[in-house]
Amino acid sequence: MDDRTVRERIRRPELLARIQPAEQAARLFAPGMTVGMSGFTKAGDAKALPRALVERAREQPLDLTLITGASLGNDSDGMMANAGVVRRRLPFQADASLRRKINTGEVLFIDQHLSETAEQLRGGALPRIDIAVIEACAIREDGAIVPTMAVGNSASFVQGARQVIVELNLAAPASLEGLHDIYVPRPRPAREPIPLTHPGQRIGTTAIAIDPERIAAIVVTDSPDSPSSVLPPDAQTDAIAGHVIAFLEGEVAAGRMGPGLLPLQAGIGTIANAVLHGLTQSSFRDLTMYSEVLQDSAIALLESGQLALASASSITLSAPMHERFLANLDRYRDRIVLRPQEISNHPEIVRRLGIIGLNTALEFDIYGNVNSTHVGGTNMMNGIGGSGDFARNGELAIFVSKSEAKDGAISSVVPMVAHVDHTEHDVDVLVTEWGLADLRGLAPRERAPLVIERCAHPDYRAPLRDYYERALLRGGQTPHVLEEALSWHERYRTSKHMRAV
Amino acid sequence: MDDRTVRERIRRPELLARIQPAEQAARLFAPGMTVGMSGFTKAGDAKALPRALVERAREQPLDLTLITGASLGNDSDGMMANAGVVRRRLPFQADASLRRKINTGEVLFIDQHLSETAEQLRGGALPRIDIAVIEACAIREDGAIVPTMAVGNSASFVQGARQVIVELNLAAPASLEGLHDIYVPRPRPAREPIPLTHPGQRIGTTAIAIDPERIAAIVVTDSPDSPSSVLPPDAQTDAIAGHVIAFLEGEVAAGRMGPGLLPLQAGIGTIANAVLHGLTQSSFRDLTMYSEVLQDSAIALLESGQLALASASSITLSAPMHERFLANLDRYRDRIVLRPQEISNHPEIVRRLGIIGLNTALEFDIYGNVNSTHVGGTNMMNGIGGSGDFARNGELAIFVSKSEAKDGAISSVVPMVAHVDHTEHDVDVLVTEWGLADLRGLAPRERAPLVIERCAHPDYRAPLRDYYERALLRGGQTPHVLEEALSWHERYRTSKHMRAV
Repeated sequence: MDDRTVRERIRRPELLARIQPAEQAARLFAPGMTVGMSGFTKAGDAKALPRALVERAREQPLDLTLITGASLGNDSDGMMANAGVVRRRLPFQADASLRRKINTGEVLFIDQHLSETAEQLRGGALPRIDIAVIEACAIREDGAIVPTMAVGNSASFVQGARQVIVELNLAAPASLEGLHDIYVPRPRPAREPIPLTHPGQRIGTTAIAIDPERIAAIVVTDSPDSPSSVLPPDAQTDAIAGHVIAFLEGEVAAGRMGPGLLPLQAGIGTIANAVLHGLTQSSFRDLTMYSEVLQDSAIALLESGQLALASASSITLSAPMHERFLANLDRYRDRIVLRPQEISNHPEIVRRLGIIGLNTALEFDIYGNVNSTHVGGTNMMNGIGGSGDFARNGELAIFVSKSEAKDGAISSVVPMVAHVDHTEHDVDVLVTEWGLADLRGLAPRERAPLVIERCAHPDYRAPLRDYYERALLRGGQTPHVLEEALSWHERYRTSKHMRAV
Repeated sequence: MDDRTVRERIRRPELLARIQPAEQAARLFAPGMTVGMSGFTKAGDAKALPRALVERAREQPLDLTLITGASLGNDSDGMMANAGVVRRRLPFQADASLRRKINTGEVLFIDQHLSETAEQLRGGALPRIDIAVIEACAIREDGAIVPTMAVGNSASFVQGARQVIVELNLAAPASLEGLHDIYVPRPRPAREPIPLTHPGQRIGTTAIAIDPERIAAIVVTDSPDSPSSVLPPDAQTDAIAGHVIAFLEGEVAAGRMGPGLLPLQAGIGTIANAVLHGLTQSSFRDLTMYSEVLQDSAIALLESGQLALASASSITLSAPMHERFLANLDRYRDRIVLRPQEISNHPEIVRRLGIIGLNTALEFDIYGNVNSTHVGGTNMMNGIGGSGDFARNGELAIFVSKSEAKDGAISSVVPMVAHVDHTEHDVDVLVTEWGLADLRGLAPRERAPLVIERCAHPDYRAPLRDYYERALLRGGQTPHVLEEALSWHERYRTSKHMRAV
């Protein structure tokens, strides 16, 4: 480790004495503790302590309650789950090993709206954080912690934790300082309006304030974020992007928004990234993003000049884009703001700015209810993430999905979703590669034919029509043949195909 | 009609010439128009035009799109539905005749969060209002309209409508002037923070501003609001109230809120009213309400002195309480604020103030999903109302229900709700007469045993346990036996009892 680099990064000299190996810092943890770790969609996560805790757990099971921003990188979630480090996990994850432990019940998973965790910690609905582990690219003269590629819940963890461990990551350039805007709402009843009225506005500080006495340990690392694993666009995601762009052009033509649209949010993952990437082929200019994650597509839009500025809580990029981004950081410095996820996803701001939320559905039903989380109604995929923060409170809630999965064995359009994450009250627009259904102002009986004819795969339209026609004979605001409503899922479970043979 | 009274109420003399019979004003309507009417939970609704439109429809079907604050009184919703006045209805209703028309599909019902209708009108997601019909107790010198016992969406209707008809109701005392606080958010992107930081704060004007030229007609009425029809508390609602009070006392003891709690919201209806009434037996003092409706219980708490002040969008009272309220209006003048429902239910304010939302569930499931609207999963009862505005964005979402309905033939606690209005992500506390389940911070597998043992009727606990145990064998984050998940509802449909015989 380069001592001079470390001294430049830790600008409060007295703190240099708190540098210690991760193994030593791991001794601060005791079984059953509640731990807050930085990290949001594989960006800005602590790299050393998860591994040190896995080692530590060989001596003694830790059964921690682990709270993060969102998913961790570096296989940390999976390793910690497999080693018995974590017994309870919130508010989001995206790891295959952890997912298995969740679905067997070995790890208890609390699937939360990403805006709410900080509020629940502040209000005492969740236990107090014993130790916060926060990745930083620098510690300032006043002790304040400068985050790396994500802010997530780190500011709230630092505020509430009994002890704080800083992971100083030399692989994260010190030039990230200045990108962040740290604002944490005050406890009630002294809560004031959040003064943000524009996506790019700065309302806070560039680092997380802390009394330096509360920094219990500093662990130095030199390890990059895991690269994002989104797949490249394909014909289907191109088609979805085309439908979304045509719809947004129609909104502009109808005078419902200006040519720069309203601020965009795009969920994590391949499809949302591809749709956003499709905007580089559009005529839109002066776009803004007010999102939770920036993926490759956002940087591409910044590069093309179509995106004027972007606000988020994390930046998660592929390896080549990550390199390009850091090399050109000064070009983006005035056009990117990284905020706490409580602010990037805050109901107050989402409603005020009128966000266009673009999120991925696992499946949706003919009446517009969306399942974002549960495979077959029972098994957790990743979690609801911020989709609910944006869908409920934003101006437009658009959900995208490919019309089929598993080579046509699964239809993403079903009679009734087997788990509801977004209700018919919150869903405005549904899109698959076949088309787009604009549900605004429509009653359920008007939505069903539209969803079937516009969004379902042609192979599934006849059975969906048949279901809906028989449901109509039973009547109701939302007609269903209740004993068949979930039969497609049950058929897939037993025969691996949703269609009757 | 007393000419002097009318002249005192219409303080802009030129407008006196626009007084006309309702039958004449009804001629302004054309088939297919979009109409906005004042009225919220039977308070402040237009009394004369609905009847005149029913007469008008005898000549020609009108097939209007009718948007209100919430439900109308005076059987107006039922009469208009039966006469073919209304083809499309939003955002809420509570009328038996209209409900039948909705469930046969003759009237198309769009069931909306009550905070969102004004936003959708402003943004153009709903058609422009052709005619607004607004009940008033006075018209000021500048033409501004002073509402009566509800504000609802009236301010937004007036802003957006091509023409405005005022119903001046002499039965609503002129002394209501000053009770209202009219604030309408500006269109984006010029939207500013809503400056409200305390439930009783006034941020707007006392009347709805309008260019007097846009008042097309004034119809004079002299007709009281329909009285509320809530049932008196009974042993079960007393028990529910007791559980809620004990829980809130626990929150205070744990330091999660102060002795005056956080601002309370209580949904319309018998159970929520009874629970709130139960607070008169509690030791809480300096309570505040930030709700959508004030029922008898709120006035009783104001009278007892326990409720310091109350903010809402309407006041819906029984006949004796209504009389008492108006007789003592000056005692309440500084302690009640009536706001647009967009503000009473606004996500920004609901999150900022940290509302405790208390709403009624039709049924809930073992994992904490709530059905507020659909009987048997298909037939509309009333609508979601504002419950989602408060449950998603507030500090605590409490849902109450009696554990059984139809003399035990229906369990309100089911394996899976047949329609989801509030997802597991939004529901904090469930209560029946048997007990209370605090779901905060719990994973689905922890919630199920708690909900079954604390909330279900003893007669249904064994079958619920049996379902859950068999679901566990299938595994998952949210275990289900999918082919049985809705079988209780189906059994009730076919055999009129949820339990197998």
